[in-house]
Amino acid sequence: MRIAELSRQSDVPVATIKYYLREGLLPQGELTSPNQAHYDERHLRRLRLVRALVEIGRLPIAAIRDLLAGLDTPRPDLHEALGRALAATSGPRGDIDAAASGEIAALIERRGWAIHPDTPAARAAAEAVAALRALGAGGLVKGIDGYAEAAELIAAQDLALIKDRQDAETTVLEAVVGTIIGDTLIVALRRMAQESASAAIFGRRP
Amino acid sequence: MRIAELSRQSDVPVATIKYYLREGLLPQGELTSPNQAHYDERHLRRLRLVRALVEIGRLPIAAIRDLLAGLDTPRPDLHEALGRALAATSGPRGDIDAAASGEIAALIERRGWAIHPDTPAARAAAEAVAALRALGAGGLVKGIDGYAEAAELIAAQDLALIKDRQDAETTVLEAVVGTIIGDTLIVALRRMAQESASAAIFGRRP
Repeated sequence: MRIAELSRQSDVPVATIKYYLREGLLPQGELTSPNQAHYDERHLRRLRLVRALVEIGRLPIAAIRDLLAGLDTPRPDLHEALGRALAATSGPRGDIDAAASGEIAALIERRGWAIHPDTPAARAAAEAVAALRALGAGGLVKGIDGYAEAAELIAAQDLALIKDRQDAETTVLEAVVGTIIGDTLIVALRRMAQESASAAIFGRRP
Repeated sequence: MRIAELSRQSDVPVATIKYYLREGLLPQGELTSPNQAHYDERHLRRLRLVRALVEIGRLPIAAIRDLLAGLDTPRPDLHEALGRALAATSGPRGDIDAAASGEIAALIERRGWAIHPDTPAARAAAEAVAALRALGAGGLVKGIDGYAEAAELIAAQDLALIKDRQDAETTVLEAVVGTIIGDTLIVALRRMAQESASAAIFGRRP
């Protein structure tokens, strides 16, 4: 199909598709004449993935490029792809507050989590804790074990669904998409549960 | 203090502070001469909040402006501010897939949540479900009740911490900051719990 048809089927404007092509998020089409290219189902699938990562996952372009590079290796590795997703969604960070890092290290020990306290996610958690304190909302950090328990439930669910899969490519795609888009779903479910709990406590809807 | 000192204390570049001033995210300083303004502690606190919402919460500028407008009303209302946070973080959405909306409405009923199925969070959840399906990761949706149960744990923790507060302004700030920055914390905890669960299942670290 031509770019206009790709745009129609994906509901992504032609200008945006050209931008993704320039940024290397979408492989070039096959040239059928000097200024006309042909696209196929593979482009359509990739385009839908990119759009979801941008619009729903709200990932920066550079992070998406990194993620896709992981998916495009000849034999994608689940751990490698998840590691890239972790790094992409945690983002590059500067110095982390030492007290907050210590609290996260203590949390990892209390929960018995088999992870290194310097993993990007642990640094991101420490950054969030430091920000909550700096903004006068440190009271919420007292409940961190409750949040960690909920995170364990979520992760058990994540892994249970993933480990049943046979096909490596589907597994990697589910892991990456489920991690990024799944964040949006979990945040939305948290909002709904908050609204319901708030109605129960305060007697009216927010 | 002058803008240079505000920049030093907040660790936000002067050019960024000027941008926030132009965008109305930070109130203007008091003019001490035609091209010099004076800033105080209130500006410093607000600047830290804006930076956290941009850098950690990754909220768009327009969403932050809406949130701050809610905080700046004479007597901020918890429900109003939470409602604004909900709308700001769910974002404006287009048409939602009818099947996905129906599934979320059924989930709300199964969980007994006292919310309207057309609330922005429900629409955001339906959008995430539709995206997971469209991207071939629909298997994850089968576990949505597990995610909802975790969301209930999180919301109970959120509300328990908030309802103990006396002072309205602190309550509103904690609700807003805890909602936005708390999302980042929960996502980071999910990553850590995933890494740990993945190590247990696959026998090595991602």
